[in-house]
Amino acid sequence: KRQGFPEVIFGEGKSASQIIDISRAMMNKQENILITRVSEEKATAICEEIPSFEYDQISRTLVRRYQEKLEYQLDGYIAIVCAGTSDLSVAEEAAKTAEAFGVEVRRFYDVGVAGIHRLFAHIDEIRDATVSVVIAGMEGALPSVVGGLVSHPIIAVPTSIGYGANFQGLSALLTMLNSCASGISVVNIDNGFGGAYNAILIHRLANKRT
Amino acid sequence: KRQGFPEVIFGEGKSASQIIDISRAMMNKQENILITRVSEEKATAICEEIPSFEYDQISRTLVRRYQEKLEYQLDGYIAIVCAGTSDLSVAEEAAKTAEAFGVEVRRFYDVGVAGIHRLFAHIDEIRDATVSVVIAGMEGALPSVVGGLVSHPIIAVPTSIGYGANFQGLSALLTMLNSCASGISVVNIDNGFGGAYNAILIHRLANKRT
Amino acid sequence: KRQGFPEVIFGEGKSASQIIDISRAMMNKQENILITRVSEEKATAICEEIPSFEYDQISRTLVRRYQEKLEYQLDGYIAIVCAGTSDLSVAEEAAKTAEAFGVEVRRFYDVGVAGIHRLFAHIDEIRDATVSVVIAGMEGALPSVVGGLVSHPIIAVPTSIGYGANFQGLSALLTMLNSCASGISVVNIDNGFGGAYNAILIHRLANKRT
Amino acid sequence: KRQGFPEVIFGEGKSASQIIDISRAMMNKQENILITRVSEEKATAICEEIPSFEYDQISRTLVRRYQEKLEYQLDGYIAIVCAGTSDLSVAEEAAKTAEAFGVEVRRFYDVGVAGIHRLFAHIDEIRDATVSVVIAGMEGALPSVVGGLVSHPIIAVPTSIGYGANFQGLSALLTMLNSCASGISVVNIDNGFGGAYNAILIHRLANKRT
Amino acid sequence: KRQGFPEVIFGEGKSASQIIDISRAMMNKQENILITRVSEEKATAICEEIPSFEYDQISRTLVRRYQEKLEYQLDGYIAIVCAGTSDLSVAEEAAKTAEAFGVEVRRFYDVGVAGIHRLFAHIDEIRDATVSVVIAGMEGALPSVVGGLVSHPIIAVPTSIGYGANFQGLSALLTMLNSCASGISVVNIDNGFGGAYNAILIHRLANKRT
Amino acid sequence: KRQGFPEVIFGEGKSASQIIDISRAMMNKQENILITRVSEEKATAICEEIPSFEYDQISRTLVRRYQEKLEYQLDGYIAIVCAGTSDLSVAEEAAKTAEAFGVEVRRFYDVGVAGIHRLFAHIDEIRDATVSVVIAGMEGALPSVVGGLVSHPIIAVPTSIGYGANFQGLSALLTMLNSCASGISVVNIDNGFGGAYNAILIHRLANKRT
Amino acid sequence: KRQGFPEVIFGEGKSASQIIDISRAMMNKQENILITRVSEEKATAICEEIPSFEYDQISRTLVRRYQEKLEYQLDGYIAIVCAGTSDLSVAEEAAKTAEAFGVEVRRFYDVGVAGIHRLFAHIDEIRDATVSVVIAGMEGALPSVVGGLVSHPIIAVPTSIGYGANFQGLSALLTMLNSCASGISVVNIDNGFGGAYNAILIHRLANKRT
Amino acid sequence: KRQGFPEVIFGEGKSASQIIDISRAMMNKQENILITRVSEEKATAICEEIPSFEYDQISRTLVRRYQEKLEYQLDGYIAIVCAGTSDLSVAEEAAKTAEAFGVEVRRFYDVGVAGIHRLFAHIDEIRDATVSVVIAGMEGALPSVVGGLVSHPIIAVPTSIGYGANFQGLSALLTMLNSCASGISVVNIDNGFGGAYNAILIHRLANKRT
Ligand SMILES: Nc1ncnc2c1ncn2[C@@H]1O[C@H](COP(=O)(O)O)[C@@H](O)[C@H]1O
Ligand SMILES: Nc1ncnc2c1ncn2[C@@H]1O[C@H](COP(=O)(O)O)[C@@H](O)[C@H]1O
Ligand SMILES: Nc1ncnc2c1ncn2[C@@H]1O[C@H](COP(=O)(O)O)[C@@H](O)[C@H]1O
Ligand SMILES: Nc1ncnc2c1ncn2[C@@H]1O[C@H](COP(=O)(O)O)[C@@H](O)[C@H]1O
Ligand SMILES: [Mg+2]
Ligand SMILES: [Mg+2]
Ligand SMILES: [Mg+2]
Ligand SMILES: [Mg+2]
Ligand SMILES: [Mg+2]
Ligand SMILES: [Mg+2]
Ligand SMILES: [Mg+2]
Ligand SMILES: [Mg+2]
Repeated sequence: KRQGFPEVIFGEGKSASQIIDISRAMMNKQENILITRVSEEKATAICEEIPSFEYDQISRTLVRRYQEKLEYQLDGYIAIVCAGTSDLSVAEEAAKTAEAFGVEVRRFYDVGVAGIHRLFAHIDEIRDATVSVVIAGMEGALPSVVGGLVSHPIIAVPTSIGYGANFQGLSALLTMLNSCASGISVVNIDNGFGGAYNAILIHRLANKRT
Repeated sequence: KRQGFPEVIFGEGKSASQIIDISRAMMNKQENILITRVSEEKATAICEEIPSFEYDQISRTLVRRYQEKLEYQLDGYIAIVCAGTSDLSVAEEAAKTAEAFGVEVRRFYDVGVAGIHRLFAHIDEIRDATVSVVIAGMEGALPSVVGGLVSHPIIAVPTSIGYGANFQGLSALLTMLNSCASGISVVNIDNGFGGAYNAILIHRLANKRT
Repeated sequence: KRQGFPEVIFGEGKSASQIIDISRAMMNKQENILITRVSEEKATAICEEIPSFEYDQISRTLVRRYQEKLEYQLDGYIAIVCAGTSDLSVAEEAAKTAEAFGVEVRRFYDVGVAGIHRLFAHIDEIRDATVSVVIAGMEGALPSVVGGLVSHPIIAVPTSIGYGANFQGLSALLTMLNSCASGISVVNIDNGFGGAYNAILIHRLANKRT
Repeated sequence: KRQGFPEVIFGEGKSASQIIDISRAMMNKQENILITRVSEEKATAICEEIPSFEYDQISRTLVRRYQEKLEYQLDGYIAIVCAGTSDLSVAEEAAKTAEAFGVEVRRFYDVGVAGIHRLFAHIDEIRDATVSVVIAGMEGALPSVVGGLVSHPIIAVPTSIGYGANFQGLSALLTMLNSCASGISVVNIDNGFGGAYNAILIHRLANKRT
Repeated sequence: KRQGFPEVIFGEGKSASQIIDISRAMMNKQENILITRVSEEKATAICEEIPSFEYDQISRTLVRRYQEKLEYQLDGYIAIVCAGTSDLSVAEEAAKTAEAFGVEVRRFYDVGVAGIHRLFAHIDEIRDATVSVVIAGMEGALPSVVGGLVSHPIIAVPTSIGYGANFQGLSALLTMLNSCASGISVVNIDNGFGGAYNAILIHRLANKRT
Repeated sequence: KRQGFPEVIFGEGKSASQIIDISRAMMNKQENILITRVSEEKATAICEEIPSFEYDQISRTLVRRYQEKLEYQLDGYIAIVCAGTSDLSVAEEAAKTAEAFGVEVRRFYDVGVAGIHRLFAHIDEIRDATVSVVIAGMEGALPSVVGGLVSHPIIAVPTSIGYGANFQGLSALLTMLNSCASGISVVNIDNGFGGAYNAILIHRLANKRT
Repeated sequence: KRQGFPEVIFGEGKSASQIIDISRAMMNKQENILITRVSEEKATAICEEIPSFEYDQISRTLVRRYQEKLEYQLDGYIAIVCAGTSDLSVAEEAAKTAEAFGVEVRRFYDVGVAGIHRLFAHIDEIRDATVSVVIAGMEGALPSVVGGLVSHPIIAVPTSIGYGANFQGLSALLTMLNSCASGISVVNIDNGFGGAYNAILIHRLANKRT
Repeated sequence: KRQGFPEVIFGEGKSASQIIDISRAMMNKQENILITRVSEEKATAICEEIPSFEYDQISRTLVRRYQEKLEYQLDGYIAIVCAGTSDLSVAEEAAKTAEAFGVEVRRFYDVGVAGIHRLFAHIDEIRDATVSVVIAGMEGALPSVVGGLVSHPIIAVPTSIGYGANFQGLSALLTMLNSCASGISVVNIDNGFGGAYNAILIHRLANKRT
């Protein structure tokens, strides 16, 4: 773990009581704690024991903030871009992650390629971000289009949303790896956390000397 | 074969002399003849025997026109849309096919998703087509974007252009099958002929009653 | 959304209350509303709130008609062709979609390739359609056979019906993409809606000037 | 090796001189010799040494007959069925194999699913065979259609003919394994020899008691 | 349906009441009825309505015999060969199918390749069968070994038994398609019915002239 | 193209004369020109026409520098890390790209996971980079190990080096996408250019305010 | 079964009562009994009947020891190495297997590649083992790293732990098969038993002459 | 490199002159040198410079022995088992590797599963080996059969020999990973070197204390 970073726990495959134990051990470190991939039942069990955790249903994250109100000490923001309802869960995992790391995010959540004017309506605000996390399921074309319009790095996150020839996200993953726009790198299917984490590292670099 | 349609020969896997024999048998039918997937060597051998064939290197097609100058008897045109040099061969197979069938085509060949302003510069002329054949390799996102901007049917043709995780066109194929834009149907990888053929059938239907 | 088209909602991954909200917002537009991929439970919850919706179990669609009795204003019909009980759900999604768009469909639902005489018994009526939507699971050979017998465009819809080496519809999908009959284009596995939507666009084109 | 069967050599991956050595060792057994998958160059080298071998370019087989003129001692024949030029090589490997085993074959080589009337023109003669070997590339639908029309066993042979989403014969292979017609079993892609061999075993069984 | 054959219903994807209706329609034909892939619940519901059906849990088949005691009118028997408990369900689907068709089967159910002496203990009785149906999961090597020891045709049935790199039966399927023993043809994963059906056709041919 | 960036041409699939034409058109822009994926023959033909291009055999790049000696105006450097001889070509494509963009690189080319002490010998100098491009073929484990040792962003580039179950780089690609180390994002197989391009964007961000 | 080895039952796909029957038949052989892949419910049912079985939840194994306290008669130990909580179940299946065979194991369970210093802390004790079983999910890089540091044979066990592009363990499996470290061989995904069994055979060989 | 082991060079992807340089640097170490995957042309070029290398065409290895005649100091031998001509190249890579390491091998090269009596003729001599390297292409069933007959560890090497559904060795690889015989672990497709290397490590362990 790096200095000044929250503690992060990967919740999948861990029982509520395992998570409670790990969290308790971390609580004296006086850092934010972020737990990802937590089901609603587990969250309920954990929050009963440690009420300072806040659960978010959509992103399935648990966050405990060490300071009551988190101040953004860095300049600028990360853009989180996706097409809409179906990819929301992954997009919010990314957003909550960035916020737990004390980084400002701006959400652009209704800008899919099939209705490209909605993307254009927001493109200037996206361009002004340090870095974008672009999330897409089904054909996964959004990062290519955004990549052609902005000049900062893009972290592309394929999602498993879709059916049939989507093959649980393989389609979107291949699309993003083959993008003909430059400046796009890719993380694992549904890995909203990883998308944000890479963006955070870049965002910090961009702020290092201010 | 349907009435008023050219004769079509699939050139791949046939020897020059086999193609010459089949062509000769067809020549008394007084229809255009289109041969697809003909290598340059084969074409040279065939044209020596039957000089009325015209070879096109890019599309790798041989065409013999029964009437010296072909008149377009149908209203409107088919739009053939792609991103550039690498997909040209497939796009031209589609274009030559449509022209051999006596159908007007308009070419939009520099409009990839990574430089979307070039697409917008031509979108009105694309919209006015009866139907579009949209060709794309690598991530294959172009049909989704065009599909969101026009309201006529789109025949999407994935190409095998790309490398690595492209897997010989699988990436573009999956992208197109998973498109979140409606009104898109797909043919086989690199099947420029098939893309055009479907468009021609639709174009004829649209002209039926005039 | 295009003029004179119903509103369409993709029901999968949306909760009953999300669907109710979206539907209510649409109801003042005085258009038909079509919702696809709605489970029986969700449908019950939605119909309690908005009783003007009609649920169909087989196609898993909800339809609300703005005009009590829908008149077909277009000439001709779309043929919907499949082999039988197992593909019925996808075939009916296609049929209900076309009907919600005010397009007449004729159903040919017992005409698989293993009993080809049943197809021949109906082939003239299929031929007279403007366009066919041909649906098949398992080996997915039906579009190839129909394609060889009719001269209008065919939209092929692979289904996930089968087991073992079917790989959730991959077998039927590949069959259709590789068809040696011309005039066949393909949509995603189980995408009855998409199959119909492409057919509707073509059907409208064929009617444009009447 | 079974009694009364020719000696068979799989030519692929063996040098001309290895094949010559093996053949010589077999020649005193006074049986037919069949060598499959022999390139033209290798064949020339072998025939120079052992002029009693006959090479067939299309099937790429070498055959040496022990008796000058081979008599068919069995009743009936095997039907070898395929769609045309592109699958000829595999079909002829099957035919030459059966003939080397002293079994009569009848060839039905222009009966693809896209022009099904040609199949119907020959269906009675196909029905009268003991067993059919049905060969198909691209979408591989032919065995399903034949299987619905005849009541004897069918050995289906997928070929690697095709391109794009054909994936070197995978498409045809999956089609055949998923056939909804009963009485079809499948051998490896391009395995004309294996298709014939299974048919020969069945054909012999059917003749056992005469 | 062929003369003298039972009626067969594919039970998967059909409701109990659908199966009851189809069965009733068939019952006046005075033939055996075989229904495959019937879950225990469905079977209970069906047997309550039509008590003359007999359900077998392992093979998941329902059989109704028209004649109280079925006589075997054909000479010889089909060998059904597998390695043990895990493939039992598929093996019994094959066995019950053959018996419903009035064909004698002999079961060799404990003869996997990892304990090959058990196969040798029975090899003579297997050799004396007209045809073998060889069923195997995991690595699927059994048909290759049996194929090297017997000289009649083998129908190989891969099963989905296994885990990890088995990929739901893909491993066994590929093994069987690539067998270096001749005289093996393959049906779909878990298709015990299809394995038996092909064997029955061959068995009937072998008996045709007696 | 972004301000102050070299012109980039993707050389694959373009003829020497096409590349010459494009280059000439770019030469009056007074920017560096980088051409990737140029075979030795093409390079010779191009350099004959435009002698100011410098060809590098290992990276297969052509570079033309506008200023005779390129000055590094940015602080810091990019680390390019790989295991050795076999991945050199991709690593050097990345290195030459960065240098054409005026960015300093440091090469760490003998640090594979099977001899991890060599990585440790250089780890401090790697840590001091702004960002690392980590290239690996075969099992592709290097980015995971480096990722656990440094705290800056890592762009992982899988290569197609290997054989058998490597499946042309699929193995390394999947390894990198599944890395359990955070801060790793991935580009296409063999995409040394893309790996460097993403690193350059990040490196520029890190320098923005100096 | 080899002399002096425990009886082993593969519990998956067998009912509790089947397992009880098999176990009873084995109990008079006076050997340890090991049952793998037993769910908690089945275990409860079995232990009620045969209380001498001990169930372990994590490894999902049932073990019955013939001698109350098992003595290790062999020199040395097997190292079982993995990265942590998620692979624990497979690692413990390996450990329990070895112990049931009377072989000493040492567990190194927190040594993943993303925190390589933890591996170094234990490397001497790992090196002193006769053989290592190295278990890893996700990217599966651990065996490569360990393989570069020790000189005894390594049995690598990929696990299905991960998501997205992990494809149920395919990623880790391919990584291990492509390892650039020598001395690594691989067993099936999640096959902790098989990993241990191979290690036991090697361990016995190393002890043969003492 | 471990003490007392030959120097090993992976020849693929290295030029003749690169190999000459590496070899020269190694020659003063007074150890055997083994170079794998060397084409005939490269070998000729290398042997001209360093005549003490001996090239073997079948295994494509170059070996230079430091001691004129190599003495086997270890007890026992490794069995190298395969089915015949097509897998010879991989089998001999394994054999030459073991011999370069000073380990005795015994070759059993005509024992495929389709003619299992040939395996039985040699089984006692195979059983007496310390460890077996079992090599197989096509369906890859040989290790399962051998594994059921011997009680020492087996290293299984799949080869890419085959066609069609073999998918370049994938079929044999999956077969071996899914083997129902215990005591089998697997290396990469065509990795004869790796198969032998694992066997050598085991063989040394078995000899450690003599
Ligand atoms: N490039 C192509 N790709 C796919 N199908 C083609 C192509 N060119 C021609 N065809 C089809 O091949 C048929 C002729 O096949 P053949 O009789 O083998 O020459 C035509 O009627 C077309 O349907
Ligand atoms: N288990 C099975 N697997 C594959 N096909 C089957 C199976 N059982 C029955 N069938 C086939 O399904 C046909 C009946 O299908 P249906 O008309 O849908 O009931 C039969 O004639 C058989 O050809
Ligand atoms: N080796 C490479 N791999 C992938 N993309 C590249 C490569 N080299 C250049 N490019 C991209 O290709 C674009 C130029 O493509 P083009 O206009 O076809 O020459 C550049 O702007 C880069 O984004
Ligand atoms: N045929 C082979 N397949 C896989 N790995 C090999 C082969 N031959 C040699 N190696 C490995 O490659 C290493 C040498 O690699 P290099 O330093 O690139 O020559 C040796 O130590 C072996 O571990
Ligand atoms: Mg950009
Ligand atoms: Mg549209
Ligand atoms: Mg047609
Ligand atoms: Mg039939
Ligand atoms: Mg046999
Ligand atoms: Mg890191
Ligand atoms: Mg080692
Ligand atoms: Mg064994």
